[in-house]
Amino acid sequence: MGKRKRKKDHYFAGVDIGGTKLHAIVADGKGNILARSRMKAKGEAGFKAVMGRVKSCIENACDEASLSLKKITAVGVGAPSAILPNGVAVNAPNMGWKNVPLTRQLKKALKRPVFALNDCEAGTLGEYQFGAGRKAKTLVGLFMGTGLGGGIIQRGRLLNGENSLAGELGHMVVERDGRECGCGGRGCLEAYASKLGMGHFIRHQVETEGKKSILEALCAAEYDNIRSGLLAKAYAAGDPVAIMALQEAANYLGLGVGNMITLFGPDTIVLGGGVMEALGKELIDRVRKEAEAVSFPRRSYADTKIRLAQLGDDAAALGAVAWANAHTLALNAKH
Amino acid sequence: MGKRKRKKDHYFAGVDIGGTKLHAIVADGKGNILARSRMKAKGEAGFKAVMGRVKSCIENACDEASLSLKKITAVGVGAPSAILPNGVAVNAPNMGWKNVPLTRQLKKALKRPVFALNDCEAGTLGEYQFGAGRKAKTLVGLFMGTGLGGGIIQRGRLLNGENSLAGELGHMVVERDGRECGCGGRGCLEAYASKLGMGHFIRHQVETEGKKSILEALCAAEYDNIRSGLLAKAYAAGDPVAIMALQEAANYLGLGVGNMITLFGPDTIVLGGGVMEALGKELIDRVRKEAEAVSFPRRSYADTKIRLAQLGDDAAALGAVAWANAHTLALNAKH
Repeated sequence: MGKRKRKKDHYFAGVDIGGTKLHAIVADGKGNILARSRMKAKGEAGFKAVMGRVKSCIENACDEASLSLKKITAVGVGAPSAILPNGVAVNAPNMGWKNVPLTRQLKKALKRPVFALNDCEAGTLGEYQFGAGRKAKTLVGLFMGTGLGGGIIQRGRLLNGENSLAGELGHMVVERDGRECGCGGRGCLEAYASKLGMGHFIRHQVETEGKKSILEALCAAEYDNIRSGLLAKAYAAGDPVAIMALQEAANYLGLGVGNMITLFGPDTIVLGGGVMEALGKELIDRVRKEAEAVSFPRRSYADTKIRLAQLGDDAAALGAVAWANAHTLALNAKH
Repeated sequence: MGKRKRKKDHYFAGVDIGGTKLHAIVADGKGNILARSRMKAKGEAGFKAVMGRVKSCIENACDEASLSLKKITAVGVGAPSAILPNGVAVNAPNMGWKNVPLTRQLKKALKRPVFALNDCEAGTLGEYQFGAGRKAKTLVGLFMGTGLGGGIIQRGRLLNGENSLAGELGHMVVERDGRECGCGGRGCLEAYASKLGMGHFIRHQVETEGKKSILEALCAAEYDNIRSGLLAKAYAAGDPVAIMALQEAANYLGLGVGNMITLFGPDTIVLGGGVMEALGKELIDRVRKEAEAVSFPRRSYADTKIRLAQLGDDAAALGAVAWANAHTLALNAKH
């Protein structure tokens, strides 16, 4: 027998499309990151303009990695929308997208295979493959940032329902006739456990209840999407409104965690997103306490590891890489 | 080649252990019921006494079917508790059970293989195999009776988490700091969408708000577990308190259905239990309307069939038969 042919090295690009920024990486199949690139998303310029910027962002990352785009086996995309199996992004309110042909457009522009999934599912998959959920059998990821999103992975499979649109953890209703949510509904978890929810709470405290808060000056009274760093600053300064807002968000995040334990029985739950990256250590005990009070049967709480995410800003891009890798392997297996 | 040996006919016993009654059937593997037997559970007499009555109830059903117990391939049991893979019933508050060796005890008494599962999971499995969920790929069952229980089946597998204790749909919290629940928590779906929840509502209306209701006479002011038939009678008579109570329960059931669509994306949801058997036709439009308002993304509602259960009182016993059948096949395959 001759020498065994050396297995070809595979490289992937992964991009996290956010409401405000794009974050692209080039990585190998084991999640080792060769290069990163960041750009503004400029969502207001419309779908095609954003796709052009995604292409540039990926090209920049390839350039950083000294790899030509042609050497990329496949591209993974995490986007703030439910994604149908045909690659159509159903609804991304922050981007103004409705039923846009996400993967078709990027395939045409990049001339590479493209595989897309929801950004929070991508984040969960990233943590599952390469981060805080590496040893999990069933993993739930919850990402608290501007909104609240998540994902569920069972034994290596993403759980998103028969129509591929489920697993929308942030839109589980936790208060009937509760606070208005950006989705048009009421009382969704996201309306409480997110920066949008905190913005609502802070504005009410300052403008209706007349409370004083240093956040008024820090964010020029624009409470709707305060940067996590400013929340952390106000929290550290002992600002009572910021502390109450963060405690309320953590209580509801804990309720969401408890409901996930009751319904899905995961062995591991990973908490990420901008707010948890900035204030996870300060908030996790409160999240755990509430989750314990909510979980049923109570002993299930003890069966679940609740951890902070480990991959920070790279989680969704790395999950997109894992998604592209998994689909490429599946395609190769078929041929 | 000689004649093919005729495949042995398999018969199963299935028993539904309820808080007040036992319901046993003998059936073949296709769910054809040969005989039924009913007895009082007498839960207050303790675990061992109930097990003795379960044995008698199964023996009666076998006798009705003119089959000796020895001809039964295996026995399936649905019990009002989470059941560990080793057959221990973790916690059945209505029966006063904590960590009782359910299958071990029955195996010893019956000298047949015994396989147990939660009663509402059994009901869901029954509807999945033989009833309103026969064509479902992912099925959620919700059973509204004294309490509210349910089950989730994905592609033939019961989803109950890594610790086998999850899928507790009735204990998903839908009102933070809401109404007290029998589980010791607050704001669980069961505290609103169940006869316990309705009892709480009716008592408040009559005793605190001073409203008049024919239920006061019909159930001798014992509102906590009114028979579904009496609720149906009061509803048909136009009793405003009964109507409000049932509407509130249906609204919350619809919220639960909506959350299930958002989280699990089933293609079919089956609604059963005593209240839905008695009043399903009157309540289902309200359940659907609320589910549509809650589901996210909204279009997922249209992807989901919401149906009334078809098997009535036999659902859990038939699910137990299916469970016993599946486990017996698995065991035979191993040997």
